[in-house]
Amino acid sequence: FLGTNSLLAACCVCFSVGSQCREEGGDFDLASIYVSDAQYNRNIYFDTSPQAVRLYLRYNHWLPQVLLYVFILVDLSLALFEEPAVFALPTWATMLVELLCLIVFTIRLIHYAKVIPRDKFWKDPKNICIIVILGLTMVDMIIYGALKASNCRAVRWSRVLRPLLLVNVTEGRQLRRAFRSIRNALPQIFYVFLLFMFSLLIFSLMALKLGLKTIDGAPYFTNYLEIVFDLYVLVTTANSPDVMMPAYNASTGFAIFFILYILINTYIFMSVFLAVVYNNYKKYLKEEVRQLVRAKRHKMVRAFAVLQEQREEGGEPVVSQANWNQLVRLVQPDLSNAHRELLWSVSDDTNQGKVAFVQLADLLNIEVITLKSRPHPLQGVCPAFYLSAPSRLLCQLVQHRAFVIVYDLIILVNAVFIGLDEENPLISNSEWVFLALYLLEILLKLYVFEPRAFFSRHSFWNWFDTIIVVAALIATIINSAMKSSGDYTSRQILDIVFILRVLRLIRVVDSIKRFRTIINTLIRIGPAILTFGQLIIVVYYIFAMVGMEIFKGKVKFYEADSSDPAKAYCGNPSLKGTPFAQLNYCKNNFNDVVSSFVLLVELTVVNQEKLEDNLVNAMETIDSDQGTGQSANSKPGLMFKIASKRYRTVDALLQRMFEADLDPEDFAETDDPAAPTSGNFSNPAFSSA
Amino acid sequence: FLGTNSLLAACCVCFSVGSQCREEGGDFDLASIYVSDAQYNRNIYFDTSPQAVRLYLRYNHWLPQVLLYVFILVDLSLALFEEPAVFALPTWATMLVELLCLIVFTIRLIHYAKVIPRDKFWKDPKNICIIVILGLTMVDMIIYGALKASNCRAVRWSRVLRPLLLVNVTEGRQLRRAFRSIRNALPQIFYVFLLFMFSLLIFSLMALKLGLKTIDGAPYFTNYLEIVFDLYVLVTTANSPDVMMPAYNASTGFAIFFILYILINTYIFMSVFLAVVYNNYKKYLKEEVRQLVRAKRHKMVRAFAVLQEQREEGGEPVVSQANWNQLVRLVQPDLSNAHRELLWSVSDDTNQGKVAFVQLADLLNIEVITLKSRPHPLQGVCPAFYLSAPSRLLCQLVQHRAFVIVYDLIILVNAVFIGLDEENPLISNSEWVFLALYLLEILLKLYVFEPRAFFSRHSFWNWFDTIIVVAALIATIINSAMKSSGDYTSRQILDIVFILRVLRLIRVVDSIKRFRTIINTLIRIGPAILTFGQLIIVVYYIFAMVGMEIFKGKVKFYEADSSDPAKAYCGNPSLKGTPFAQLNYCKNNFNDVVSSFVLLVELTVVNQEKLEDNLVNAMETIDSDQGTGQSANSKPGLMFKIASKRYRTVDALLQRMFEADLDPEDFAETDDPAAPTSGNFSNPAFSSA
Repeated sequence: FLGTNSLLAACCVCFSVGSQCREEGGDFDLASIYVSDAQYNRNIYFDTSPQAVRLYLRYNHWLPQVLLYVFILVDLSLALFEEPAVFALPTWATMLVELLCLIVFTIRLIHYAKVIPRDKFWKDPKNICIIVILGLTMVDMIIYGALKASNCRAVRWSRVLRPLLLVNVTEGRQLRRAFRSIRNALPQIFYVFLLFMFSLLIFSLMALKLGLKTIDGAPYFTNYLEIVFDLYVLVTTANSPDVMMPAYNASTGFAIFFILYILINTYIFMSVFLAVVYNNYKKYLKEEVRQLVRAKRHKMVRAFAVLQEQREEGGEPVVSQANWNQLVRLVQPDLSNAHRELLWSVSDDTNQGKVAFVQLADLLNIEVITLKSRPHPLQGVCPAFYLSAPSRLLCQLVQHRAFVIVYDLIILVNAVFIGLDEENPLISNSEWVFLALYLLEILLKLYVFEPRAFFSRHSFWNWFDTIIVVAALIATIINSAMKSSGDYTSRQILDIVFILRVLRLIRVVDSIKRFRTIINTLIRIGPAILTFGQLIIVVYYIFAMVGMEIFKGKVKFYEADSSDPAKAYCGNPSLKGTPFAQLNYCKNNFNDVVSSFVLLVELTVVNQEKLEDNLVNAMETIDSDQGTGQSANSKPGLMFKIASKRYRTVDALLQRMFEADLDPEDFAETDDPAAPTSGNFSNPAFSSA
Repeated sequence: FLGTNSLLAACCVCFSVGSQCREEGGDFDLASIYVSDAQYNRNIYFDTSPQAVRLYLRYNHWLPQVLLYVFILVDLSLALFEEPAVFALPTWATMLVELLCLIVFTIRLIHYAKVIPRDKFWKDPKNICIIVILGLTMVDMIIYGALKASNCRAVRWSRVLRPLLLVNVTEGRQLRRAFRSIRNALPQIFYVFLLFMFSLLIFSLMALKLGLKTIDGAPYFTNYLEIVFDLYVLVTTANSPDVMMPAYNASTGFAIFFILYILINTYIFMSVFLAVVYNNYKKYLKEEVRQLVRAKRHKMVRAFAVLQEQREEGGEPVVSQANWNQLVRLVQPDLSNAHRELLWSVSDDTNQGKVAFVQLADLLNIEVITLKSRPHPLQGVCPAFYLSAPSRLLCQLVQHRAFVIVYDLIILVNAVFIGLDEENPLISNSEWVFLALYLLEILLKLYVFEPRAFFSRHSFWNWFDTIIVVAALIATIINSAMKSSGDYTSRQILDIVFILRVLRLIRVVDSIKRFRTIINTLIRIGPAILTFGQLIIVVYYIFAMVGMEIFKGKVKFYEADSSDPAKAYCGNPSLKGTPFAQLNYCKNNFNDVVSSFVLLVELTVVNQEKLEDNLVNAMETIDSDQGTGQSANSKPGLMFKIASKRYRTVDALLQRMFEADLDPEDFAETDDPAAPTSGNFSNPAFSSA
């Protein structure tokens, strides 16, 4: 630790003297790491020695990150092949694969340990967590192997720990933040829950004492715990109005009790619950974003300190355009020269001062679509033909609004045909007509628009159309070929053909502006939804693993052709005559990981709360959304378009969401080394004298 | 119209000359009307002639307003006595009462017509609406009476119009605003609904084409419309997982289809729906509040213009304290002198300029609790005893935290005793002990605290305690007396005793700070919830009336002792063997207004959306809520406490909610007569030269 400090001090001296003693490459590496960390909000306290910096660059390379996720995925999907398996594999095979995964995780962890100072490594609970998981998994594998070898009953209990890797790897920032926000909001939610429970108990006591009767005068609601359970279920409205009917039939007055209960507990309490969850989650998320913004600022100031030059005596330190260019090229090698020039021109000066420089991380996060207004390749090949009057008329026709309307009508007709009976040869042959029409549309558009622009990275609907139509064409041809070669038709291929045929209809959405806005909003918040997807997978996986160990084989599913008498009660005598067996719920079991996940989804389908936070915020801008695609001409034949409020990272989206709420001081740069740094980011601040 | 204008012009001349030609009483009446209109956000364009002003003062008196609501209530509750009746009354009786109601409404409307200029009256859709409702009701009553007299079948169709009176009377401002916000938000919601329907149709088409099969290979999901309906119900999760089980049993792959459907339609679309409803409703409500604030400012400027005096040449016009006092005394006669002095002292000057004056309406809306630190009456009667050492010790004991804890424990023990079997004499006698303990607590508190402070208007929990305990005491005594006088025990009285006994337990909530905060928040947004309550009543009433005319007698309910064979199918052969009859749902019918309302509540119990808007905003301040009870000493022995963020009117609550969002210019006063006035409030602006 002392070594690091003295090194930093040396660096500072270095910078203040000037640029004589710089080790050029190392400096740029360091600065680019700071910028890239700021851009992606990585809060890693890395060692600043040149070796560690080079290691850290390699650590952040996309390849090891992708590999890590692939191995985590492999590790998680082992549940498909382990006992109780969907596709059974021998134990040694799965164990071997798991061992490989463990080795990969260990290598990645060692790499990380080499990047950051030793004491920081051991103080980070993430690393301790991973080490414990790896250790426990090894111990479990050895015990399991030994027990299996001696034919004893063994439990692979360490499988529960697997999804925790997703949370604890350095890349699981988003997921950790979501978990942290939920954990922080829990105490507030807990109080509302307590109050709700209190209300439930009071109502149950009242129901017990009211002596509710059925219409036959039989007592009803006599056991306190049963009442509590019934009224608890009533909050989810699952047993409404059945739970109320006997009492209501006996006396209309009893209905008042139930209506009052539903009003207070289902409506008011559940709303309070939602409001508290929403507000607290938002509050803590805002706090997290505030810390992120501050940490980003600090990193950019540090990057500036590395590259700054003192141009004139007493003047502000600046970064020259040459150095700036080299830095950006290092941080984002795939950036086009034009795009880089655009970013530089934003600061509008021959050198960049600190204020302009610290914006760089945010600027790099803005997705800029480069539109090159290139001529159509046909124009180059055969200008006389392409620019002739009929060709121009065709171009005008295709670009006309009527063209869109005609194709919308074709899609509607197609929808009707799909709904009709396909046994009719007229209808089944009409499919070829529609396919031809759709192909013609794509070819016409390719004739009119420049192909590279048509298939640019952000033309979602063009890609969607082309892929769906081409896939449908291929599937339909294969299907027809199989049909004509014999009477055998593959069910799978037919299903694919049908699905593709129906998916084509979704295209209509794109031609209605309002619909497009809604879909675009959903696409924009996609990454944030994916974080919650991961979170749910982590929770489901843990529950599935525990459920499988406890309940596997308790409920059996018999195929249709089975004549086993146990089929009527799912192979479990205690289910004889229960609604579970009568309603054919036997397949809702924990016998393998797929069944477990389906069952957990079924159990979840009651209420949703989390998604709305992002949606509400995203929707707030839904209306003001259409006019923000700004254009800036910088070179003839080249246009930039700022993708309207679309951001490359979830963090950037979050920052944008809370921009109005954050204090201006969070955005202000604090050079003071004594300034309070955020809890997440406790690197020592450079003095930029 | 010309007449009004010239009058206004005359007034303006009057004010600019000075205070010579003022008709004192009339001026104060006018100014107090402006202030009171600003305070309660009444946007009525009244005539400013002295006669009209006096009439308008009478129009705004609380008595006719309460009477109006009483007669609306009587009119609405006529449904209980009309065919199909809960308590049957002869037709002539209900007709007579309704006629009386109509006369009252007509008188109120004529009063209103005399207050505002004739052309304004006929341009206001509210008035036209009331006239049409009254006219149609008269026509319907005549037709109905004639048809009944000639023994023909007659329908009282005008009953549907009754709840519309609630919306269209001048006092129904809140309700109209809620309806307007919903109506304005509808187009946005409609687009999301269309997209949802599109998604539903696409999924249904896919389900049809996938050829789902049950485990026996039987086709399943074969009719398109049935699929659409089943999948629509699946969005409400009412038929989950039953609708999926047959296909899931046949093949695990089919589960993917259903899970994808639930993910997209139940989770994503319903969240988008909620987000759009929330945002649009909030947006339009904010716009309404912005207009209210502007209109309020205009009215206060006008009131200032009426009372202003030019003290020195070239100086700002001011209002003297004497005039100000007279005005406030007119606007709010029940305000204590001390409170009025406090309001004046806020401006901290001997005269009030315009900037300070326009705050008056908002200041009057802040609920100020006057705490008088009076000595205990016993201290006055017998100071030697009350101030003796044992008496002081007792006071300290009662005020100690342990006292609260001891009584919380007593309540817990009581809860356990209530849950136990009451046949045991030990337990039934324990009730007397608990009652004595609770009475002792109240008496002790009355001994320690000044009784008037203890029973002040804002001590909700003290009132609650005392009423519950005294009522329980009375009911228990009556119950025991009846028990000992014979073996007859009234079920009703016993029920009341039990309910009171259980309600006593709620007291625990008050001693836990977090719970108290949540409950206080709910109480604070109570008025806003009541507006939605009215809105729901309006909608329910209309549906109940229509439902009763269409469905009355279609489903019959038979008492338990009935031996009619029709009982098994609710008296409707087409219900034979349906789940409706099997589940004993016969009482869910439209045979009278009470059954109709219960049925409509049952149908509503699926999802809630509206309440959250107010809750989310109210909850945002839940944490910062406890420290805002500000005290300001102005006189010895007299203390003011500003009730923490509690407001007298819903409008004030709304204004507070959106304060951060509204532009400062909405709060700024605009004297310019050419300034754009809001759509609701189009009175000509006074020139205050």
